[in-house]
Amino acid sequence: MNTRIERDTMGEIAVPEGAYWGAQTQRSVQNFRIGDERLPRALIKAMGIVKKAAALVNAELGQLDPALAALIVPAADEVIAGTLDAHFPLVVWQTGSGTQSNMNCNEVIANVANERAGQPRGAQRPVHPNDHVNRAQSTNDSFPTAIHVAAALEINARLLPALQRLRDTLEGKAAAFRDIVKIGRTHLQDATPLTLGQSFGGYVSQLDHGLARLDQALAGLYELALGGTAVGTGLNAHPDYAVKSAAKIAELTGLPFVTAPNKFEALGGRDAAVFASGALKTLAVSLNKIANDVRWLASGPRCGIGELRIPENEPGSSIMPGKVNPTQSEAMTMVVAQVLGNDTTINVAGASGNFELNVFMPVIGYNLLQSIRLLGDACASFEEHCASGIEPNLERIAHHLHHSLMLVTALNPRIGYENAAKVAKTAYREGKTLREVAIELALLSGEEFDALVRPQEMVGPRP
Amino acid sequence: MNTRIERDTMGEIAVPEGAYWGAQTQRSVQNFRIGDERLPRALIKAMGIVKKAAALVNAELGQLDPALAALIVPAADEVIAGTLDAHFPLVVWQTGSGTQSNMNCNEVIANVANERAGQPRGAQRPVHPNDHVNRAQSTNDSFPTAIHVAAALEINARLLPALQRLRDTLEGKAAAFRDIVKIGRTHLQDATPLTLGQSFGGYVSQLDHGLARLDQALAGLYELALGGTAVGTGLNAHPDYAVKSAAKIAELTGLPFVTAPNKFEALGGRDAAVFASGALKTLAVSLNKIANDVRWLASGPRCGIGELRIPENEPGSSIMPGKVNPTQSEAMTMVVAQVLGNDTTINVAGASGNFELNVFMPVIGYNLLQSIRLLGDACASFEEHCASGIEPNLERIAHHLHHSLMLVTALNPRIGYENAAKVAKTAYREGKTLREVAIELALLSGEEFDALVRPQEMVGPRP
Amino acid sequence: MNTRIERDTMGEIAVPEGAYWGAQTQRSVQNFRIGDERLPRALIKAMGIVKKAAALVNAELGQLDPALAALIVPAADEVIAGTLDAHFPLVVWQTGSGTQSNMNCNEVIANVANERAGQPRGAQRPVHPNDHVNRAQSTNDSFPTAIHVAAALEINARLLPALQRLRDTLEGKAAAFRDIVKIGRTHLQDATPLTLGQSFGGYVSQLDHGLARLDQALAGLYELALGGTAVGTGLNAHPDYAVKSAAKIAELTGLPFVTAPNKFEALGGRDAAVFASGALKTLAVSLNKIANDVRWLASGPRCGIGELRIPENEPGSSIMPGKVNPTQSEAMTMVVAQVLGNDTTINVAGASGNFELNVFMPVIGYNLLQSIRLLGDACASFEEHCASGIEPNLERIAHHLHHSLMLVTALNPRIGYENAAKVAKTAYREGKTLREVAIELALLSGEEFDALVRPQEMVGPRP
Amino acid sequence: MNTRIERDTMGEIAVPEGAYWGAQTQRSVQNFRIGDERLPRALIKAMGIVKKAAALVNAELGQLDPALAALIVPAADEVIAGTLDAHFPLVVWQTGSGTQSNMNCNEVIANVANERAGQPRGAQRPVHPNDHVNRAQSTNDSFPTAIHVAAALEINARLLPALQRLRDTLEGKAAAFRDIVKIGRTHLQDATPLTLGQSFGGYVSQLDHGLARLDQALAGLYELALGGTAVGTGLNAHPDYAVKSAAKIAELTGLPFVTAPNKFEALGGRDAAVFASGALKTLAVSLNKIANDVRWLASGPRCGIGELRIPENEPGSSIMPGKVNPTQSEAMTMVVAQVLGNDTTINVAGASGNFELNVFMPVIGYNLLQSIRLLGDACASFEEHCASGIEPNLERIAHHLHHSLMLVTALNPRIGYENAAKVAKTAYREGKTLREVAIELALLSGEEFDALVRPQEMVGPRP
Repeated sequence: MNTRIERDTMGEIAVPEGAYWGAQTQRSVQNFRIGDERLPRALIKAMGIVKKAAALVNAELGQLDPALAALIVPAADEVIAGTLDAHFPLVVWQTGSGTQSNMNCNEVIANVANERAGQPRGAQRPVHPNDHVNRAQSTNDSFPTAIHVAAALEINARLLPALQRLRDTLEGKAAAFRDIVKIGRTHLQDATPLTLGQSFGGYVSQLDHGLARLDQALAGLYELALGGTAVGTGLNAHPDYAVKSAAKIAELTGLPFVTAPNKFEALGGRDAAVFASGALKTLAVSLNKIANDVRWLASGPRCGIGELRIPENEPGSSIMPGKVNPTQSEAMTMVVAQVLGNDTTINVAGASGNFELNVFMPVIGYNLLQSIRLLGDACASFEEHCASGIEPNLERIAHHLHHSLMLVTALNPRIGYENAAKVAKTAYREGKTLREVAIELALLSGEEFDALVRPQEMVGPRP
Repeated sequence: MNTRIERDTMGEIAVPEGAYWGAQTQRSVQNFRIGDERLPRALIKAMGIVKKAAALVNAELGQLDPALAALIVPAADEVIAGTLDAHFPLVVWQTGSGTQSNMNCNEVIANVANERAGQPRGAQRPVHPNDHVNRAQSTNDSFPTAIHVAAALEINARLLPALQRLRDTLEGKAAAFRDIVKIGRTHLQDATPLTLGQSFGGYVSQLDHGLARLDQALAGLYELALGGTAVGTGLNAHPDYAVKSAAKIAELTGLPFVTAPNKFEALGGRDAAVFASGALKTLAVSLNKIANDVRWLASGPRCGIGELRIPENEPGSSIMPGKVNPTQSEAMTMVVAQVLGNDTTINVAGASGNFELNVFMPVIGYNLLQSIRLLGDACASFEEHCASGIEPNLERIAHHLHHSLMLVTALNPRIGYENAAKVAKTAYREGKTLREVAIELALLSGEEFDALVRPQEMVGPRP
Repeated sequence: MNTRIERDTMGEIAVPEGAYWGAQTQRSVQNFRIGDERLPRALIKAMGIVKKAAALVNAELGQLDPALAALIVPAADEVIAGTLDAHFPLVVWQTGSGTQSNMNCNEVIANVANERAGQPRGAQRPVHPNDHVNRAQSTNDSFPTAIHVAAALEINARLLPALQRLRDTLEGKAAAFRDIVKIGRTHLQDATPLTLGQSFGGYVSQLDHGLARLDQALAGLYELALGGTAVGTGLNAHPDYAVKSAAKIAELTGLPFVTAPNKFEALGGRDAAVFASGALKTLAVSLNKIANDVRWLASGPRCGIGELRIPENEPGSSIMPGKVNPTQSEAMTMVVAQVLGNDTTINVAGASGNFELNVFMPVIGYNLLQSIRLLGDACASFEEHCASGIEPNLERIAHHLHHSLMLVTALNPRIGYENAAKVAKTAYREGKTLREVAIELALLSGEEFDALVRPQEMVGPRP
Repeated sequence: MNTRIERDTMGEIAVPEGAYWGAQTQRSVQNFRIGDERLPRALIKAMGIVKKAAALVNAELGQLDPALAALIVPAADEVIAGTLDAHFPLVVWQTGSGTQSNMNCNEVIANVANERAGQPRGAQRPVHPNDHVNRAQSTNDSFPTAIHVAAALEINARLLPALQRLRDTLEGKAAAFRDIVKIGRTHLQDATPLTLGQSFGGYVSQLDHGLARLDQALAGLYELALGGTAVGTGLNAHPDYAVKSAAKIAELTGLPFVTAPNKFEALGGRDAAVFASGALKTLAVSLNKIANDVRWLASGPRCGIGELRIPENEPGSSIMPGKVNPTQSEAMTMVVAQVLGNDTTINVAGASGNFELNVFMPVIGYNLLQSIRLLGDACASFEEHCASGIEPNLERIAHHLHHSLMLVTALNPRIGYENAAKVAKTAYREGKTLREVAIELALLSGEEFDALVRPQEMVGPRP
């Protein structure tokens, strides 16, 4: 591979000729050959946004030559657009502050900018990666800022819309299924009836709460560390820089970012990410309930519950013809398992800050963004390929409803709990219907039974 | 042991003579000999509140003879007060709906009430445990209601005040330490300075956010399942019962409880508890940072960092005289480890609902209430026995500050980054001060050095 | 409360008159009012064993006056027997080394011994808690030793027997159900058949592996820290003390304890406990599968799968007569959720050692012992109250088997996969049997169908 | 994009012209647009091994035309070699059995084999993906087999060698540092001395145990599900196939694979993976201790502990010249956080099997293999870039040792615990040395002090 020589404070190092990155990135490539998990696209984009905002604000505050800012901004725009992703070779498992990824971004922007200005790669002029691109920043404030920006953007652009769509689809089903009375199940055991629409309404309510919880989590993510620089004091930054840079990021993203009220917290803790993960895992728990209910209600087709039909998206088995598996539920619940594990990772990492810095930032960013993306994508996939096509198996639902022994509950007021229990137990033991047994035991006539046992009247409050 | 005979729908069973509980409780005692973790006091109290509210509202709605309500209420008050705790023998590891603990409460209240009315234990009249104490309730709605009531009460009465007190104490320290300039540390390595007050201000900000997050979590806990009865439909409850019983509980507790907007969610999911645990684990993560910083800054006394002094509360070692250990930090961080584990348990349990019911309720309640209590108690203990007595070791702080090589940063503008790095590295290699080396290398005079290196001017924004 | 004055190196302190504990315990009572989780019985017992072994070995090595040892041993025996548990008031949330519980044990043994020798409580002579009871020990080696001893004893005495019994009961069921052919289920969907005995045989194999994994975990727990004293060097202990004290503990317990090969690891890490928790959580995962399968197979009775009948141990519902809930499965799966959370706690705590000591010992011991106890008790309860009474619902099993569409697989060799799929899909769509459709489509005669579709021949390898 | 038409039992579908995959893979590409985590290379390789072994054994048993086997094997070899990875486009978040990835492998091998035989892609002859490549297999047995094969290979080829190398390097350091006496630290507080070699010996012992635990975990991974086919009965497989295919895989890999003793467990549970993750998390916990000790001991250089020097691999700060950060420790501890989270995911997924199948296999495989790879790579990186270059800072070590107050412990036998405590406390309060204070208090002469306080004699057992 052809290389060129780049240098930093530790000396010279060979960098691949075609790379926009520089010496510090290259050192990290060589020093951290751990796994293959690169920083997620959303985080690289957010770093570009931070660099762009910093350049614009520094220029505005007289801290950066506007001519240099004019070179930096379009290069940052390319980072934002994703066309330079190949020049971000670093993995998650690096310096815990993300220093090398921050320098990666500085180096790429500087080299791209300088190339536009007619300089060769590695020239470090007119745009210097540290002095200009990283101006008024430390990794310690810009990297956690990028994590917040990336997470907030992904929640807004990917997760919330997909979740809202799933919620709306389920609400549509709840309305469509409003009058379908079915047997309820508690402890997996037959219970008193409810409507299928009521079941789906419960899911809608779970997701409504989930949407609200994400809003609460976003509030913390909107607080940005930028302006804290190395240890939170803001050394080397203009006094107005923190507020203005947050405002600039808000302007660039359309999201209500503000400067964090306390920069020492903003560098030393990652609590907002921990709490956001708490909202994400709660959503995961809700989705687990929904996906499980759907697959259990669709289990069978003959030897399970079979009250729902779900779309057939792929052949279910290579040796069992006609098998349809609840694969969207399976993908969803695997995502849930992943999100719960990510939450543990984020908890451990978030708890491990010391003094003026938490040095578990790349792993926090990686897991937080993975949880957001997976939940968003899984909601979209589940909505499109499963939820939207759910249909009731009316015959099966009716069969279960009318064979259930729990309808006996409706007889309590007339024949008493003791007699009702006798009817139910006899019917179960002898494999008969409640109606048959009630008549056999001379407790009720068929007409009386029919008048009392009306499942559709058992689905609402009735003292 | 003397016994009396009680009976339920399964037949007769011997119950200890002195027990207020009845047949169903006794069956659980015998069927679930698992561990020794009984339901927490806070949960028993909350069950008492639920029973009291239900009796009052049922009477008001004409669903319960006021004379019976008048017998039930004082018995419920005793449950609330805790004088009957010995009559709640059941462990957490029972029916997943908590049915047997709900029946335990029904049986105890009925027996106490009936005894007052001149009946022997086990008479089941005039107050019947099911027909009257459990009136318009199912375990499926009353038990999760009790969990919410218990958690909300404990957060309000125990956790928030202790947390607020710790926050205030730390704020007092932040003010007291406002002018103490100390070396900063990132990556555990010496960095640019900040004030000790700024460090403590970061902790205060973490706890302020923690207080706000608990408020967000409380919003979900204030939504009550009561009125959903067996499967969420409200069968067997008066149409006004759900709203009125939540209002009654609000009145009894002084907290803004409301009826849950969707009862199917309220029975099938435990998402509000999962989210509350998410807020608690975030607080735990914050407290971990604080407790760790304190013990590391107090490490030594001679061979560690030693910048803080913490109270000596007990002998530290039986063989090493004079040893003072950071035991409050240790208790706090053990509590944090517990809360993180409890969060995993709650996630797993909360994700495991099926159809119309989540049957992991006792384990959710147990862990949620343990997390709340431990965090509250640990905050109180840490505040009283550690935080309030933290003092700076000014000599040590000054020594570190003035020997740190990172003050060289202040020379950058005058002698350039390259020369500054040379000064720092020479000083480190030769064990000298920056000032000595700067003079030796003829880069600056002593006066010039002193004029430039002013740590107290490095603790705020300065471009 | 009447008190007496005790003293330690920090001065005087009032102790309840009736307490056998002394000054250091009392300080902890006052300094750590956190939660109400006391050290588990198993751990107190193990501390007694450690103290007894140390006294005997120290006497043998000439490090302790045999007359004092003769006073210490019977007092330690009382600690072992549990008659002094009321004198161990300390909670888990204390010093992270367990120093105060170690001193609690030293103080109780000294006071009991001295009382026997005619001295008042608090006399500290002839037996001194530090100089004699704690002889050649530090909390740093004796407390982790006690954790290992307690965990190994509990695994051997409680968990393994209960697990073995459950395994044997399931093996008995596997044998009894050997010839019951039933439909298989993958993805919750009907699949090719197997025997009910084969299903249960899978559970037996899971538990056999679980037993072997516990043995592997025990190997690490059998390594004892005792003899490392304060930092692992063995300062203040006789050179033969480590080996001999482990041998003595082995003799007292009948378990193959040995001295840990490296005492620095034995104090600084708690890896053996972390690994043991790994074996326990694996067992939990196995038990979760078993308990879930049982409750799903027993779901219904009419509207679920209903292929198994489980014992009715308690009334299932106060309003739904005849309802039988799978409560033992529920208790078991709640225990599983707890064990998974305990594992997280133990991981976090075990990862947090620094230098010569891990100071998360009480929380590790508490969680490890809780996991062992709950799994042991839950196995015993599940075996006695559920597994031993499981019976097949033969009618239901046969109905499912013969209505399943997946038997169509047996037609593949004769009519081809395409035609077989057509039969299955037609039968599903039109609600017919495979036999009916095969005849209607003129693919096979009834006799041919019957000759081919023999579920009992599909339950073993057949190319 | 140019496409060709492929077909499966659901009908026709357009596939990219250049793709070797077929219809079922394409359906999954379209149905599961969730995240971008593809199946890991190690798992694709293992699927190739399984297909190769199956073809060879089926041919040997007369179940597959040897001519077809001869076409399948070289195509499988390409899958093993990795040259076809671009044709494995599926993500982790798919069917929970991995069916679509199994079919992906079947389709790729068939198409490559058929192309060699002169047929166009999609011809499905002479080699058919189901009938020949998947012969005697179901995804349900071949996919978990591939997970075991992949995990065992990665542990053996990547993790164990790197771990062994790190262990050996640390052992070399332990030997080199054998005579360097340093202060011990417990509770982060100064304690009695030990040698630096002893500290490192503790790390070696942790890793020795870790190596042994991985061996224990491998035993379970060596048991293969292959031969169980769809539900564990072995339907459609030759009776000798299970044993022979495991032997063939053993031959191909050089690892002692055997057929699982119980195939119902092998399909329904993933316990061996859960237990392996338990061994991995225990190793993670050990490595966390080591990496943390190293960075804390290297903290400073002036304001921390500073007893170790670690290699400078990259510039530590863009604004603080001369800063060296413990970046390898940071990468390691981030990996640890990831492994602990992966363990939670694996626990949740492993606990979630139902009936004859666990449908969380892709997520289990993904997390297990990530944990193995990250631990292996991190051990290698930490060894090469940190551990091998660790050097003691002798001056700092000596300074700490001789200023520590805990050496006072050596005076106990001569002047008593009370006087020794007085010396220590006075020295601490007045900032003096123990020697100065002992002389001032007239307790000892300087010569006597020097004769008693010999740290090098405090690093081993001494009663």
